[in-house]
Amino acid sequence: MRLSKFFLPTLKETPADAAIASHQLMLRAGMMRQESAGIYSWLPLGFRVLKKVEQIVREEQDRAGAIEMLMPTIQPAELWRESGRYDDYGDEMLRIRDRHDRELLYGPTNEEMLTSIFRNFCKSYKELPKLLYHIQWKFRDERRPRFGVMRGREFLMKDTYSFDLTEEDAIKSYNKMFVAYLNTFARMGLKAFPMKAETGPIGGDLSHEFIILAENGESEVFCHRDLLEIPAPGLDVDFNGDLQGIVDERTALYAATEDVHDAEAFAAIPDDKKVSARGIEVGQVFYFGTKYSEPMKAKVSHPQNGEVPVHMGSYGIGVSRIVGGLIEAFNDDAGIIWPRSVAPFDVGILSMRPGDDATDAACEDVYCKLKAAGLDPLYDDTKSSAGAKFSQMDLIGLPDQIIIGPRGLKQGVVEVKDRASGERVELSTDDAVAEIIRRHSQAVL
Amino acid sequence: MRLSKFFLPTLKETPADAAIASHQLMLRAGMMRQESAGIYSWLPLGFRVLKKVEQIVREEQDRAGAIEMLMPTIQPAELWRESGRYDDYGDEMLRIRDRHDRELLYGPTNEEMLTSIFRNFCKSYKELPKLLYHIQWKFRDERRPRFGVMRGREFLMKDTYSFDLTEEDAIKSYNKMFVAYLNTFARMGLKAFPMKAETGPIGGDLSHEFIILAENGESEVFCHRDLLEIPAPGLDVDFNGDLQGIVDERTALYAATEDVHDAEAFAAIPDDKKVSARGIEVGQVFYFGTKYSEPMKAKVSHPQNGEVPVHMGSYGIGVSRIVGGLIEAFNDDAGIIWPRSVAPFDVGILSMRPGDDATDAACEDVYCKLKAAGLDPLYDDTKSSAGAKFSQMDLIGLPDQIIIGPRGLKQGVVEVKDRASGERVELSTDDAVAEIIRRHSQAVL
Repeated sequence: MRLSKFFLPTLKETPADAAIASHQLMLRAGMMRQESAGIYSWLPLGFRVLKKVEQIVREEQDRAGAIEMLMPTIQPAELWRESGRYDDYGDEMLRIRDRHDRELLYGPTNEEMLTSIFRNFCKSYKELPKLLYHIQWKFRDERRPRFGVMRGREFLMKDTYSFDLTEEDAIKSYNKMFVAYLNTFARMGLKAFPMKAETGPIGGDLSHEFIILAENGESEVFCHRDLLEIPAPGLDVDFNGDLQGIVDERTALYAATEDVHDAEAFAAIPDDKKVSARGIEVGQVFYFGTKYSEPMKAKVSHPQNGEVPVHMGSYGIGVSRIVGGLIEAFNDDAGIIWPRSVAPFDVGILSMRPGDDATDAACEDVYCKLKAAGLDPLYDDTKSSAGAKFSQMDLIGLPDQIIIGPRGLKQGVVEVKDRASGERVELSTDDAVAEIIRRHSQAVL
Repeated sequence: MRLSKFFLPTLKETPADAAIASHQLMLRAGMMRQESAGIYSWLPLGFRVLKKVEQIVREEQDRAGAIEMLMPTIQPAELWRESGRYDDYGDEMLRIRDRHDRELLYGPTNEEMLTSIFRNFCKSYKELPKLLYHIQWKFRDERRPRFGVMRGREFLMKDTYSFDLTEEDAIKSYNKMFVAYLNTFARMGLKAFPMKAETGPIGGDLSHEFIILAENGESEVFCHRDLLEIPAPGLDVDFNGDLQGIVDERTALYAATEDVHDAEAFAAIPDDKKVSARGIEVGQVFYFGTKYSEPMKAKVSHPQNGEVPVHMGSYGIGVSRIVGGLIEAFNDDAGIIWPRSVAPFDVGILSMRPGDDATDAACEDVYCKLKAAGLDPLYDDTKSSAGAKFSQMDLIGLPDQIIIGPRGLKQGVVEVKDRASGERVELSTDDAVAEIIRRHSQAVL
């Protein structure tokens, strides 16, 4: 993409009403614009990150055997009356009446709808297990939306639903999602730790939040330091095999959010292994048995026992929230520092003198070669000053930069800068291209 | 994908309340389920087609130089008061009040919001032209939603917005979209014809609808038969070059929807060239000048003339509606017949005897080789009867089938069936794989 053709409205000033780094930087980097309290437009740069995050989430769901579908944003109120949650949900639910005065709502989650789809079509234990997911916009009418996409009202979420014949089988589905989540976050460069959590309005008695540690985290979390050192299971996990060991290794160590914190158990951890920190929730998994299948009569024939309600779980990842979480985890005074797997562009090309024949030719050459290698470069071909180009490129946080100008070209070199370390090396144009390709071929996981 | 792991709730009976082929077949083929009047869940099979259509639309927008972003579904009412459309829109607009009693709405289109984004960030003619688009769910509260996704309430739409300094430049943007649309529909195997159309609530005085001809079309259209014979421009069109010739070639021939039909002009066409038929609108392009930029003060500095309002256009494609349109265009008594570019899976593999060692081995072999070739097979590994498998596979309309059973395998052959023609050939497993790969390498455009 040539910057002159792109739409990248970066801001020089930090917006006054943005309190945390991710909110400030998403506005400054031209990633989004607020349209109403807690409701954002994703400008082209932000949209690209959102799509990268969404795609990693999708690939790991697919790998774990979940099947993608898509439920609508608008739901009928009757469904929520069946489960008993229509009144429970309170003011956070955006309630709507259509032209015929029928009661609708903007879905904050989809347990009811998918339970109703399941009961409509699945009647036999032979059709189990089922793992279905969608990635769709949700709405929660927060009283005080804040922190940008971290606590917005309209937000993009991946939610998976599992249907099993028994609790034992349901735990297998739970474990699949637990393991898939570890890999999902690791692929984005995030260290997300499973911690015991309250089940809240979803219900059930088994739940883990996946938490990334961050100074601006919304809640306090407590855990054993060794948990932070366990690597992700890796993409070669056999999701049809026994995953209990992977789950046990991580749940054996103390880890809890403040809501379910057990001070006594925490006190028993050796002092040098105690971690108490702020955390951001990026995902949550629930096993809630027959909480929905019972009242909504989602039953299947049992091989011996007549008809039984299915055991269910649900599994959410906050796709739009992760974009903010990533920035909280990866930024410095100059701006954002994207992990390569989620960067909006793979590399920036900065022309130090557009209009100079040698510079234009070298930039075009590098641009075409990177594209031919399957990378996605952003080529700053504008006439802005060198200083403005440097700070804008640092602000938007592409992992690598290639700086090309007449002075270097006379000596046959361009500069390659690593955004994270700030390290610069001088290389020939061909070596620069090869170096960028090499860096991007090193997968996180 | 193994069918035993997938979620494909096909129906034997045609649902009583579905009046047209696409609505009936989407329900019968397990592509979708109605959640409320005109609001659908996209089940896994339907979701796959929706994504294929969306991706073709996206690729052709990108090729034409449009930049993708994403605006929210919920919009503040104030924006629509600025343009004057808040009251005009009537009952079709889904109006919402949030917990603080602020007026919101579910966006039926995004002229106002993108005009407001543009005026916020773009101040100079130097930033023009701009072509921005998004693919997002919209809502129109139809009084009588019907015909399934063809006239639903919640629907997926691609909408592009162009911003130019002058009318002359704006026509260039209009032409880019006009040409991109011709290629977009052609890639899906659809013959869509540009026809003069009313501008309706969007406004302006230049507009074309892109129409596919279909017996169940919602409106009557009239055109010169020669229009139907002009091939799509092709993917090597230079979008930075002059596109007027391509547009003129198609607009020189008479073609109009019933709303703007000119009986006199039509009468002048030779009888054997007169076409009057039913049509389905799959896209529409508008040039409306300063209709929004004037009241909303979206102005840029002009090189000579101070500040001027920008000239705008908007360009829609009904992504979810196209799924229905495709089925209207491609079906027979047995079910759907997907064009290869939008098929939910590329090929079906039907095991005639799961559990038989030779059959299982041959099926696995074919399945793995097709996947290794980058194709996406659906492998019916279930224990259903042969007859049930044949009719389900015909119903869901995958373009090719490979039928594998012990009898053929004894003679070293499997059957390859072309869904569209019904033609069957017997081939060795390796030749069958090669034949499927060959068929799928022949791009439509």
